[in-house]
Amino acid sequence: MISKQYQDMLSGKSVIRELSEYATARGQEIGYENVFDYSLGNPSVAAPKAYNDKLIELISAGDPMLVHGYSPSLGIPAVREKIAASLNRRFQMNYKGEDIFMASGAAGALAHAFRLVTAPGDEILTFAPFFPEYNPYVNLTGAKLRVVPASFADFQINFAAFEEMLNENVHAVLVNTPNNPSGIAYSAQTLAQLAEILTVKEKEFGHDIWLISDEPYREIVFDGKDIPYVSRFYPRTLSCYSFSKSLSLPGDRIGYVAVNPASGVSKMLATMCGQISRGIGHNCPTALMQLAVADCCDMTADLSVYETNMNLLYNELTSLGFEIVRPGGTFYMFPRALEADAVAFSKKAMRHDLILVPGNSFGAPGYFRIAYCVDTDKVERSLEAFRRFVKAEY
Amino acid sequence: MISKQYQDMLSGKSVIRELSEYATARGQEIGYENVFDYSLGNPSVAAPKAYNDKLIELISAGDPMLVHGYSPSLGIPAVREKIAASLNRRFQMNYKGEDIFMASGAAGALAHAFRLVTAPGDEILTFAPFFPEYNPYVNLTGAKLRVVPASFADFQINFAAFEEMLNENVHAVLVNTPNNPSGIAYSAQTLAQLAEILTVKEKEFGHDIWLISDEPYREIVFDGKDIPYVSRFYPRTLSCYSFSKSLSLPGDRIGYVAVNPASGVSKMLATMCGQISRGIGHNCPTALMQLAVADCCDMTADLSVYETNMNLLYNELTSLGFEIVRPGGTFYMFPRALEADAVAFSKKAMRHDLILVPGNSFGAPGYFRIAYCVDTDKVERSLEAFRRFVKAEY
Repeated sequence: MISKQYQDMLSGKSVIRELSEYATARGQEIGYENVFDYSLGNPSVAAPKAYNDKLIELISAGDPMLVHGYSPSLGIPAVREKIAASLNRRFQMNYKGEDIFMASGAAGALAHAFRLVTAPGDEILTFAPFFPEYNPYVNLTGAKLRVVPASFADFQINFAAFEEMLNENVHAVLVNTPNNPSGIAYSAQTLAQLAEILTVKEKEFGHDIWLISDEPYREIVFDGKDIPYVSRFYPRTLSCYSFSKSLSLPGDRIGYVAVNPASGVSKMLATMCGQISRGIGHNCPTALMQLAVADCCDMTADLSVYETNMNLLYNELTSLGFEIVRPGGTFYMFPRALEADAVAFSKKAMRHDLILVPGNSFGAPGYFRIAYCVDTDKVERSLEAFRRFVKAEY
Repeated sequence: MISKQYQDMLSGKSVIRELSEYATARGQEIGYENVFDYSLGNPSVAAPKAYNDKLIELISAGDPMLVHGYSPSLGIPAVREKIAASLNRRFQMNYKGEDIFMASGAAGALAHAFRLVTAPGDEILTFAPFFPEYNPYVNLTGAKLRVVPASFADFQINFAAFEEMLNENVHAVLVNTPNNPSGIAYSAQTLAQLAEILTVKEKEFGHDIWLISDEPYREIVFDGKDIPYVSRFYPRTLSCYSFSKSLSLPGDRIGYVAVNPASGVSKMLATMCGQISRGIGHNCPTALMQLAVADCCDMTADLSVYETNMNLLYNELTSLGFEIVRPGGTFYMFPRALEADAVAFSKKAMRHDLILVPGNSFGAPGYFRIAYCVDTDKVERSLEAFRRFVKAEY
């Protein structure tokens, strides 16, 4: 019989998708260039030429049995080795190829990570504001996602609320730094404190608590700063990565799970991912994209536009009176709305062709997300719309 | 905590993988060209030039935001339309684009199909001999796979056994035609009888029974024959397809679910696949491969080598006294072993550097699988090894 569970989900509305559809429809009326569509977190820059060149080289001159052939279910060994070496070089880690599981983007990586370290009924904690897709990602495994309220002053971690919610049913904690939607990267201090609490609670509960780190925005960082690599702070860390943002190729569906070897069980967990794949139809990411990213994993697309856009928006919006925690990376910011009801706020913004996503689905009502992965020209033109909006409505 | 379920699976042995590893090791001793490795069902011919040309054209001249950009979770609309049109043209179906869900290969397609029409605890029936990966594919969803004994005379369906096992807990029936491992395609008569039984039982049980048709070998057919398109026989059919074999690109992870519009709920079911994806980390297959197969879905790689190989092996082995149901397609055949214990038989064959997979894991002990997706030259050289093997051991 037709699954009631998935049928019922069809009636669920995605606010982001609705806003995006409105923006498209409005664009057909007034020209899409005049709609300041800040709804979707879609990379707006081209993939690096070196990546495209590598794809073409592989297709034209590679062994077709390798380029179009089955990858082993854990990933192509040489690719896993190269990614381990790159992470070791960049983050002073100690990965071997056998600790890396190649996955179809971050969604694929997370689908394996959740199943590795939780069973149905277990709890996974995450921190507001958070990517709303974590709800189905986690809850459809049978585990339960619970959301720790935000630390609104800095969008680091609200440790008081965290410790209150950290009970013995919690088997994993999910972090996303730099963060969608806030753009904030966790500080070394935050990560050290998190690790300390987890270590204490593991002893108290008598079982492991795994840290699942979703880090697709790891390479989009501002002000020339380095951000801390999560896994360095805690041995039982599963780093879930996607090349979607760093190389600007979300359609290529390529990423990985990197299991911290300090856990002592990294090879086993990476290998277990291959068993999980059998139940969720994952199999392996495309061989072609595996081979191409292996040679491009130290480079990025030209990501500078995001910092340019961030500065333009941050400066204008703060001068208009918005409270904003200044992003340390990503292509998002998460200002406080000018009224308590961010949904009403977003609707008013639409009158000025500004498409802003209310923070409710991110676990932070009263705030809104701006996804500034758009052309800088449009960002510049949108500033006048923000001025008009604030003047007219508030 | 680390999942016990997946940890326990690590100790499970794959006979096919073990044989393949043995063949590789033996190849390092005597040269792989001298190991007659018939263990793996891996396409042995190159992808068509037109497909590679299309990939290169898309990468070089396509809109990078389309080629490397997110695909909608159900697939790129124009791709879904083209695939529907191709199926309609070739199989006199009536699909619309909205009935097609783009998936990462057949494994991805099946992962969605099982979840569409069963809930945990439901039974899915399939027919021996069968692809052993169906066990984890189904059982890890929470549904239960039960296997109907083979009709050994012709590898069509053992209807008496089927009707006995078809109880009201059965919500789906899984077929694979042309079949791995037998190479047999179900006749129109078989499919008509299957549909008739399902229709009667749906009324008796008061609920739908869906037919899930796994058809990655659909385009590898012999003797210039057409084989029946399963979905034409039964309205509630989910056709699960992969381009892995027809275009010879298993590493590209691209296929689809096509829901028969005669079911009356095809658009809804295809749309529900997008919800299922959220729980299993599927998201969408690569945009690049979607765009490329859309333009190549009426062509195939040069598949003639498989028929050449089949004839060479079939003729030699039957003359050596093997009982074989002659394959109608695929790159497999499934002869009866020369002793009751096919595992012992396979071990003896290894002494002659013939790597043959015993039928036990396919639900047919006493038989063995030959995967003849290898160079014809090697097939020819293997015939002498078969002669030596039979003479020496039997």
